[in-house]
Amino acid sequence: MARAVLVPLWLCWALGCAAPPNVVLLLMDDMGWGDLGAFGEPSKETPNLDQMASEGMLFLDFYAANPLCSPSYTPQDIVGGIQDSEILLPELLKKAGYTNKIIGKWHLGHRPQFHPLKHGFDEWFGSPNCHFGPYDNRALPNIPVYRDWEMIGRYYEDFKIDLRTGEANLTQIYLQEALDFISKQQASQQPFFLYWAIDATHAPVYASKHFLGTSQRGRYGDAVREIDDSVGKILKHLQKLGISENTFVFFTSDNGAALISAPKQGGSNGPFLCGKQTTFEGGMREPAIAWWPGHIPAGSVSRQLGSVMDLFTTSLSLVGLQPPSDRQIDGIDLLPAILQGKLIDRPIFYYRGNEMMAVRVGLYKAHYWTWSNSWEDYSKGIDFCPGQNVSGVTTHLQEEHSTLPLLFHLGRDPGEKYPLSFASDEYQGVMRRISAVVQQHKDTMVPGVPQLNVCDKAVMNWSPPGCEKLGKCLKPPKSDPKKCFWSH
Amino acid sequence: MARAVLVPLWLCWALGCAAPPNVVLLLMDDMGWGDLGAFGEPSKETPNLDQMASEGMLFLDFYAANPLCSPSYTPQDIVGGIQDSEILLPELLKKAGYTNKIIGKWHLGHRPQFHPLKHGFDEWFGSPNCHFGPYDNRALPNIPVYRDWEMIGRYYEDFKIDLRTGEANLTQIYLQEALDFISKQQASQQPFFLYWAIDATHAPVYASKHFLGTSQRGRYGDAVREIDDSVGKILKHLQKLGISENTFVFFTSDNGAALISAPKQGGSNGPFLCGKQTTFEGGMREPAIAWWPGHIPAGSVSRQLGSVMDLFTTSLSLVGLQPPSDRQIDGIDLLPAILQGKLIDRPIFYYRGNEMMAVRVGLYKAHYWTWSNSWEDYSKGIDFCPGQNVSGVTTHLQEEHSTLPLLFHLGRDPGEKYPLSFASDEYQGVMRRISAVVQQHKDTMVPGVPQLNVCDKAVMNWSPPGCEKLGKCLKPPKSDPKKCFWSH
Repeated sequence: MARAVLVPLWLCWALGCAAPPNVVLLLMDDMGWGDLGAFGEPSKETPNLDQMASEGMLFLDFYAANPLCSPSYTPQDIVGGIQDSEILLPELLKKAGYTNKIIGKWHLGHRPQFHPLKHGFDEWFGSPNCHFGPYDNRALPNIPVYRDWEMIGRYYEDFKIDLRTGEANLTQIYLQEALDFISKQQASQQPFFLYWAIDATHAPVYASKHFLGTSQRGRYGDAVREIDDSVGKILKHLQKLGISENTFVFFTSDNGAALISAPKQGGSNGPFLCGKQTTFEGGMREPAIAWWPGHIPAGSVSRQLGSVMDLFTTSLSLVGLQPPSDRQIDGIDLLPAILQGKLIDRPIFYYRGNEMMAVRVGLYKAHYWTWSNSWEDYSKGIDFCPGQNVSGVTTHLQEEHSTLPLLFHLGRDPGEKYPLSFASDEYQGVMRRISAVVQQHKDTMVPGVPQLNVCDKAVMNWSPPGCEKLGKCLKPPKSDPKKCFWSH
Repeated sequence: MARAVLVPLWLCWALGCAAPPNVVLLLMDDMGWGDLGAFGEPSKETPNLDQMASEGMLFLDFYAANPLCSPSYTPQDIVGGIQDSEILLPELLKKAGYTNKIIGKWHLGHRPQFHPLKHGFDEWFGSPNCHFGPYDNRALPNIPVYRDWEMIGRYYEDFKIDLRTGEANLTQIYLQEALDFISKQQASQQPFFLYWAIDATHAPVYASKHFLGTSQRGRYGDAVREIDDSVGKILKHLQKLGISENTFVFFTSDNGAALISAPKQGGSNGPFLCGKQTTFEGGMREPAIAWWPGHIPAGSVSRQLGSVMDLFTTSLSLVGLQPPSDRQIDGIDLLPAILQGKLIDRPIFYYRGNEMMAVRVGLYKAHYWTWSNSWEDYSKGIDFCPGQNVSGVTTHLQEEHSTLPLLFHLGRDPGEKYPLSFASDEYQGVMRRISAVVQQHKDTMVPGVPQLNVCDKAVMNWSPPGCEKLGKCLKPPKSDPKKCFWSH
């Protein structure tokens, strides 16, 4: 269990030091680096996010932990999920007096033992899986929507998503949930953690009627505009309640834009190579903004290499807590970068499944493996790098380069088009440095236990808690667990 | 000659109306849409240009007239140049009492009759051609640098450009020329037009010692940083002199980034397809900023389809002049877009040589011809679309699509990767509209007389005016004019 060293906040408060800040994490689904005006989206349709950046700090080099959502695409028949041995941020915050709410997609297991309220959250409104199919096919259960412990309906039945028009009110519902939670917490003077995990930009993308057809970018842009509007309303709500200077807000995305869904249902990775599911920059570099008026200098820009994993350590640091000391923690505390503009030297590792595909050290990125997607998928028209083809880099075979990694300078070549010459002094010098970093990483790596490799149709969302009250229980088939593999 | 209808400015001034604004046009060479932080360059190294945008208006959809500099690449042995029958902006402004200066590259002919001071400019500091070779090869003349009527030296001899290190002081010299000219004009209370045509971002790219090695982006980025710094100093100078509210400044570039020079000497076209020399968006969409404190709302963004040709009509409008009425003028007056946020419906035509390759109407772009570059060049490693390959779009043959143009929606698909289905209602409806626009364009087209198709080694810069005083006259060979062709 947690060995977090708690700073005695009651003592701090008694002594008159500032109350610990609320923490709001706005996590988008499949939104790409290039989807925000502030990051060069050519329609510039995100005025609220752009203003958030101009009032806060824009991160240029912020990475997802993995080029997939969960970090693996987890269909409903996956047996596994988050383990009790893992210590989640809300578990630690709870001990410090925080009320924690998740709104939107959980995606860390849908079976009872994985329920977010068993892992530190106090409230939940949202769904355990992504909002795509089975689209009202009663032969398989539609994804349930929960309020706290119990389901209150299912997608496509009680929470409509019109696949033809793209109309759904979900982002509006999630927005209202956020505003209400913030108001309630402010009224009760309780510090809070809000995790707002929005999936409108994951195919099938959706927007409410008011936003449909309003973007130059089509339906995907409509979804982005509604999210942008909602983020603006959340920030304004914090300001109106007078708690913006005591609320740390961070906006980012879970992986790069899903170019397989472009152009109608996929976003943009700006100048970067490929997209979701790959370890090129387009797959893992994310839009990121930190906002905390009165603490973060307005309009600042950070080149700190950051990772979504850092939000764990950073949030703890904000609250005055230490991360657990009984295990290796991969994230770092970004507060020195955010509050003092410091640059912390740290590598970024790019994983696909269990394979370390690439590593970034400073401005250099070395690919130990390259792979876009298989010839088999590619021949069916599935393309993770549409319109892009860098010879020897966007390979359709899994190609190993461990002996002579492909090296790119991401300052001169953010699009990963021009590998450095193996014979150059620059290559030799940089690879010496990177090899040491990789060696240390491999030496200290503690492999995780795979959670997502057993499937069983019986574990799907047939009869979530609460289904009886709604008459929405479905009969599961007989249990038949087997090994399964999700391409990543 | 000019039939401009002059508003009697002296009368206006006598009646107490505002003095006509100074006009400053900052024109970059080969700088791409994606090279500015405000347009999503991932190193965000242009704080001054980004601030110019935040104080002025950013144009998202602004185009070069042609994907090449001049609009054709004009080596020294080109016989032609700007004709006397053409009426240039400074000629008209001069009649309205303006003093006009060009600093930097002229590139509209280097023979005596084409001299900028014969075409409306009062002062010149710079060169008639681009600053590349012949790199001190005395067998061919190095490009001369002029002050007004006479040359004062030559590149690589008197104005050093170190090809190994990239060091050159030229941008600093051009900056100082601009500051001095502005000071002089302000002191004499004379309205002015300053055309600052900077070529540090054209290969071989250069920067002064202070800026070399300071960019994350390598030498190209060093050049951009020096230009950014210089633009900041020019704007601050206008503010310090108290004339910023009476000076209209426009920043843009002459064509897309030259990807053939990437990654070390070429820029970025952000999310757009291909680069310089092509009629894809990467070849012609340009960074553009209008700045006029007190007149242009700070931080505004315009989606007006604009063209560098509009700066002629717009500048005349600013001064209260009408464009010549004896000829077809392709540019429009952008002031309603700039000052009142209006959107003027107008097409953009994409030419390569004499061929209308594509047209943009609203968010749609129809390609009547596709061509990246020839198989012959491509097989030699010359690639106008490095790392990009859109099947049937980035063709190495000149492919005609006049019967069924390739149609793209630039909002959903700014990267021109997904042609609309010919059978779709959207295609049919849009092409009806576009066909009418193209028909009208072709009906009213007055073809120009080619100026750049005869070459003669004898016309090169052997003995520019002033060479005698410097002992820098070279002996030209015997005249031998012949037809020549520049690939475009």
